[in-house]
Amino acid sequence: MTMTVVPAKLNQSKDKLVLLDQTLLPHEEKFLELDQVEAVWEAIKKLRVRGAPAIGIAAAFGLYVCSLKSSATTVLAFKKEFLASRDYLVTARPTAVNLFWALERMTKRFEEEAEKGVAAIKKALLAESEQILAEDQAMGKAIGAYGLSLLKPGMGLLTHCNAGGIATSGYGTALAPVYLGQESGYNFKVYAGETRPLLQGSRLTAYELNKAGVDVTVICDNMASLVMQEGKIGAVLVGCDRVAANGDTANKIGTSGLAILAREYNIPFYILGPTSTIDLDTPTGADITIELRAPDEIVNGLGKRTAPQGIKAYNPAFDVTEAKYITAIITEKAVVRPPYQENIKALYQ
Amino acid sequence: MTMTVVPAKLNQSKDKLVLLDQTLLPHEEKFLELDQVEAVWEAIKKLRVRGAPAIGIAAAFGLYVCSLKSSATTVLAFKKEFLASRDYLVTARPTAVNLFWALERMTKRFEEEAEKGVAAIKKALLAESEQILAEDQAMGKAIGAYGLSLLKPGMGLLTHCNAGGIATSGYGTALAPVYLGQESGYNFKVYAGETRPLLQGSRLTAYELNKAGVDVTVICDNMASLVMQEGKIGAVLVGCDRVAANGDTANKIGTSGLAILAREYNIPFYILGPTSTIDLDTPTGADITIELRAPDEIVNGLGKRTAPQGIKAYNPAFDVTEAKYITAIITEKAVVRPPYQENIKALYQ
Repeated sequence: MTMTVVPAKLNQSKDKLVLLDQTLLPHEEKFLELDQVEAVWEAIKKLRVRGAPAIGIAAAFGLYVCSLKSSATTVLAFKKEFLASRDYLVTARPTAVNLFWALERMTKRFEEEAEKGVAAIKKALLAESEQILAEDQAMGKAIGAYGLSLLKPGMGLLTHCNAGGIATSGYGTALAPVYLGQESGYNFKVYAGETRPLLQGSRLTAYELNKAGVDVTVICDNMASLVMQEGKIGAVLVGCDRVAANGDTANKIGTSGLAILAREYNIPFYILGPTSTIDLDTPTGADITIELRAPDEIVNGLGKRTAPQGIKAYNPAFDVTEAKYITAIITEKAVVRPPYQENIKALYQ
Repeated sequence: MTMTVVPAKLNQSKDKLVLLDQTLLPHEEKFLELDQVEAVWEAIKKLRVRGAPAIGIAAAFGLYVCSLKSSATTVLAFKKEFLASRDYLVTARPTAVNLFWALERMTKRFEEEAEKGVAAIKKALLAESEQILAEDQAMGKAIGAYGLSLLKPGMGLLTHCNAGGIATSGYGTALAPVYLGQESGYNFKVYAGETRPLLQGSRLTAYELNKAGVDVTVICDNMASLVMQEGKIGAVLVGCDRVAANGDTANKIGTSGLAILAREYNIPFYILGPTSTIDLDTPTGADITIELRAPDEIVNGLGKRTAPQGIKAYNPAFDVTEAKYITAIITEKAVVRPPYQENIKALYQ
């Protein structure tokens, strides 16, 4: 089996949350072992763990290992400590939906088991956090299996940004078919666009694919057209931040350009993500607001100036790929093909 | 008149070659004043001056100011010193065609005036080097005027890499219409793609346009699709390294992708360059070999690692834009439109 990098997991013999410190990548690979609520809070706050699923998993295991520290003997005292930890952790990234969701699941489980006593509750909290991990892994594998069914051994694949294992439970979304294929000897050749300005492709995607033994090559984003023209790419695999009801998809800046190039070169262009990313309340891509980030991320790349002082920069974080350029949207439930309006709706019937 | 940055010129009151040290950009703007042949050699060798036309101009003025240092009273002695300087300067960048060409022009002029004595020769060398500068400026203005005829005031323009003034005598090729338009109050809004991996767009293009008072905004290369989609771009202007007989054009990596995006968004895509860049002996783009450069330029950007140690990178320096994506090729002689095979040939008839 392929060894993917799991960004947040439990060391059960030590009762510690093990986190890959992603802020140190690509310079250093360091795993933190945490069992203090302040340290878990700090790791989430400082983006040492990132990606919605990974944050949820880290919060669940974090809350569990912290609860083990409690010497409370009554459920009432134990619950007071538990809720204090939960209320504290939720403030680490107040806008992270998965953080809230995972902590709520843990709280609900606590309440369900409340009558069984402290030891039983601790056991249940362990089970719940393992369940959160397992569900995410199952989702990644399902997306991966659907994706893999569309790919051929030895194919060159282009990906963008990091929709990989270290943002999730190890399989990722866009990279899930790559990891599943690796387990079956597909020998993909993956090209990772570096993804300016924050370089998630070269810092994170190249790191995790390389760790798993996948053949990965970094390119600058502007090299995509040439590698496609040279016949190096058999399919493009990217993640998604939001899919509208008509299939228009918001994802990391640069995605829409890759989709247009792929169509021009007759290369399939696949969006991969869980159905939870589909927002039926967003009719089309035009209804998605593009986040603008600080110009300094561009002109002060890597902490060094890349343009003279005083130069303006425009730094949109996402773009919208029109549905007409998307060959298929690959979810854990099905491979969705055009017409998207109808076929996305059918996912929920 | 717009004050463009002239990268190599003569300070006639001091008898010095004045060079913008482009290796210090974007952090520092420093003009070197040189009159020693070793210093001129070093400046060319170390890429303090870059761009074929600018190198030729620097070499011509450099050879002139160095010749002024001579205390020789006979033509024979003066010529010996002159040829020694010339033979030395030519070794600074042996593959730079314009360096050789400019030094040859100076030598030819020397020989034409040889009978008139040392003082007359020095005067002729000044005239020849000023002529080389003037010819390049005239070419830039001609390209600029043809280009400007295709643009409208207030337009948003996208450019890539640096085909600008500081590679030439001040007007550049792709940027020449921008400077001419600036003189006539066109108020263009220029978007400069930063141009990974070496960032010529943010370091050089943004620098020189900003100095000339042009409204310039840096974007990452992968943002081109979005700014086009948002309606910000009325035309794309790029330079060229080689134009094949059928119109296929080699230019900085990323150019072909911009051309495909521009066609998709119905935006005119213009190649700008002197007719000397057209190579009738190259039938099509398929006959152009793409230079591969060191992977380290990508994964060690700005002297900092952007990917973990040991990660592969692919670093082609150029790509070929197929003629079918090019709206027009703008030269100093004419605006060439499809069909390129015939219309390029017609330039020479």
